[in-house]
Amino acid sequence: MKQEIINELIQIVGTDYVVSDLSQMNSYLYDETEFKLRPQACEDCVVAKPETPEEISEIVKLANRYRMPIVPRGGGTGLCGAAVPTVSSIVLSMERLNKIVEFDDKNLMITVEGGVTLEGLLEELKKHDKLFFPVHPGDEGAQVGGMVVENAGGVRAIKHGIMRNHVKGLEVVLPTGELVNLGGKLIKNNMGYDLLHMMIGSEGTLGIVTKATLKLYAKNPSVGTLLVSFNSTEDASEVVPKILQSGITPLAVEYIDREMALLSAEHIGLTYPATKGSVDLIFILDEANEDDLYAKCERIVEMCEENGAVDSLIAETTKDQRTILEIRSNVYTAYKEIVADALDMAVPVAYFPSLMKDIEALSAKYNAKVPVVAHIGDGNMHHYILMEDGKAPDYLDKLREEMYEATLKYGGTITAEHGTGKIRKKYMTKQYTAREIEIMHHIKKAFDPNGILNPGTIL
Amino acid sequence: MKQEIINELIQIVGTDYVVSDLSQMNSYLYDETEFKLRPQACEDCVVAKPETPEEISEIVKLANRYRMPIVPRGGGTGLCGAAVPTVSSIVLSMERLNKIVEFDDKNLMITVEGGVTLEGLLEELKKHDKLFFPVHPGDEGAQVGGMVVENAGGVRAIKHGIMRNHVKGLEVVLPTGELVNLGGKLIKNNMGYDLLHMMIGSEGTLGIVTKATLKLYAKNPSVGTLLVSFNSTEDASEVVPKILQSGITPLAVEYIDREMALLSAEHIGLTYPATKGSVDLIFILDEANEDDLYAKCERIVEMCEENGAVDSLIAETTKDQRTILEIRSNVYTAYKEIVADALDMAVPVAYFPSLMKDIEALSAKYNAKVPVVAHIGDGNMHHYILMEDGKAPDYLDKLREEMYEATLKYGGTITAEHGTGKIRKKYMTKQYTAREIEIMHHIKKAFDPNGILNPGTIL
Repeated sequence: MKQEIINELIQIVGTDYVVSDLSQMNSYLYDETEFKLRPQACEDCVVAKPETPEEISEIVKLANRYRMPIVPRGGGTGLCGAAVPTVSSIVLSMERLNKIVEFDDKNLMITVEGGVTLEGLLEELKKHDKLFFPVHPGDEGAQVGGMVVENAGGVRAIKHGIMRNHVKGLEVVLPTGELVNLGGKLIKNNMGYDLLHMMIGSEGTLGIVTKATLKLYAKNPSVGTLLVSFNSTEDASEVVPKILQSGITPLAVEYIDREMALLSAEHIGLTYPATKGSVDLIFILDEANEDDLYAKCERIVEMCEENGAVDSLIAETTKDQRTILEIRSNVYTAYKEIVADALDMAVPVAYFPSLMKDIEALSAKYNAKVPVVAHIGDGNMHHYILMEDGKAPDYLDKLREEMYEATLKYGGTITAEHGTGKIRKKYMTKQYTAREIEIMHHIKKAFDPNGILNPGTIL
Repeated sequence: MKQEIINELIQIVGTDYVVSDLSQMNSYLYDETEFKLRPQACEDCVVAKPETPEEISEIVKLANRYRMPIVPRGGGTGLCGAAVPTVSSIVLSMERLNKIVEFDDKNLMITVEGGVTLEGLLEELKKHDKLFFPVHPGDEGAQVGGMVVENAGGVRAIKHGIMRNHVKGLEVVLPTGELVNLGGKLIKNNMGYDLLHMMIGSEGTLGIVTKATLKLYAKNPSVGTLLVSFNSTEDASEVVPKILQSGITPLAVEYIDREMALLSAEHIGLTYPATKGSVDLIFILDEANEDDLYAKCERIVEMCEENGAVDSLIAETTKDQRTILEIRSNVYTAYKEIVADALDMAVPVAYFPSLMKDIEALSAKYNAKVPVVAHIGDGNMHHYILMEDGKAPDYLDKLREEMYEATLKYGGTITAEHGTGKIRKKYMTKQYTAREIEIMHHIKKAFDPNGILNPGTIL
């Protein structure tokens, strides 16, 4: 890294907020992508920690002058390597843009800086205790700016959708240095092309999110969790569309292999409450009152039983609810050390059983173990291809490729919520035509003529 | 129009589906934009009526060869002149792409061709009688493809959002002739840049929508309508955010000047049921059951009364409900002949009272009458600047400009749901920076290098 770039960065953000010593830089070079899969970080980097959009704008201008890439860095919780610098870069850490700008209950919106964590956002909302932000990608260390550019999903998409549905306004530093405001506290805006929606999901390649205005919703006070066990994937997955059609929209419907649940429970020292069957559905419901909640829980159990459920459990206490949800959310940490790749495909919800059958056949073909946990309500599944003897299995690439092909056959997507990043861009041509990818290249160039922002990500 | 273009069109779609005689072409040259405001159509056009995406692709390739603009035409119900050819063009009428492709209840999706009207879509759903498509821009002659590219809104945005929230997949002929599929029956998709969302709201300038896959929802069976009267705009508008915060989300909340309601009622020969007060809120609720419906109606009336409501009426019968809604939806037809411009601004819902005061002051300044009807729940208002002696008033441009400035001051937008089209593009620089508009030009060029599709629209 050129000393003059380091010096200029020090002039912009101050000497305390520039890290150029590799030993202090390590935690800024990787994200949460599986160890075996993540790209190799380039160590010839410098970390800058600006405090304001204006400082970011200056850094971006400097980067354009030197043609030096910038890799924006949020909470580092991403799972696609988007925040890993693979060439000599300025790593732009957003951690100091961590202020709550405005809690606007009258407009049911909140505006926060891009570096506010999901945890910080939820704590702020807890203070006011009346409005609710629905998107919850699992790791509360995620920063809001990162959630926007990764278009975060999570377990509640079935009822509330994804980040895209709730991001109404953004303040963004463009890759050419200008600070712009996109959208606003608006439900409708049809003026011009929608650059706001172009920014959502752009993975740090089209702009740096310095502020985000998010839609809030009235809270439903009555929350309940249901655990329903089945003997087969088919039984479990076929009931889900039926429930949705009946007019019940749970906050979340999760699918989990029993083996995974048990391993996760063991990992965190809890006892998994289900014993019969081999796969489970976890339903979370939030309703306006207890009567509604119980009526819907009962109706769900009824429909599950008609569809072959072998056991069901309504978690009545907060403690029981927490047990089930903690086991569910620790699946990834329990498997992290033995996962070669955690996939992120999605198919239309009704095709879930068919795809699962295809993948069963593929697992048999490769003699592979591929446990699965899924946000089944929105068709998004995470298959874990496991290591063998501490190494990625030989069949990893082939199996993954065949799984992707199976998914695309059902009109699915290779990545539903984790993002393309640096690890999935090689599969872009599987999902998109040459002309579509060409248009994406032009769009990148429209925003970022010098290719400064996060090169090697998506395209 | 060159005879060779006409001949080639005849070869592609057949002689019955090419109209080159001006006397038969007239109904294809204008949309529903106010008579005084709409752009002058170029009469040197030819209308082609393809039946398939493949024919459209051929027409687009032909247009690129001759550098002859194409103006895609849906139902012609637009209000921004986007479908008016202002230069010599091929008008591409979508009317023959009118097939329902698939009602997929298992995935809660429906796929229709781009030329299916909203009426056709609703009729198809009625046959199955269990799932619901929420977006309703008022005129059921609108075609789905047009609703997608205009990102249609309407009265139900407060509960269900706009087209963007429900369009999951599109088949599109690109301006370079390729047929592509964007998105799918998916709730989550984070692969690459999102060209689907770029297409939504692009007003026929980035692609021609040949098929759309729309999300459907379970129907709420209990529907009720409430009419609540107030003595002032302030009282009426301040209660709305309070209701939303309380956890009640009506299907629609409309604001209407009494004078407008009376004129509309007279226009269609009905009696407006409210007599006290000077402005009204119309609430439409759809709930899971009658108990919920009545509880919420009562709570709304209570909150309105605490906020100065002078009268309220629960429309118990279908007939009463229909009377109120027909009066509301005929406001535009009642005023159509005397409106110089119907504006389409929106502000954050809590700033509605302040903006209304500013506009009152502006009306006084110009001695203008500016009645208003509003989708107040989402902050979108339609002010009507009226003609004087059958002519657009002298102050029209100045008043409109000052109203736009007032709106932007509150973080609003110049067009919330009607679109930029050809009549509002001159205001783009008021709402966006030069760099944003420059990026939009590059995006246009990325999709449409020869500028074939709908030139003069948006940019």
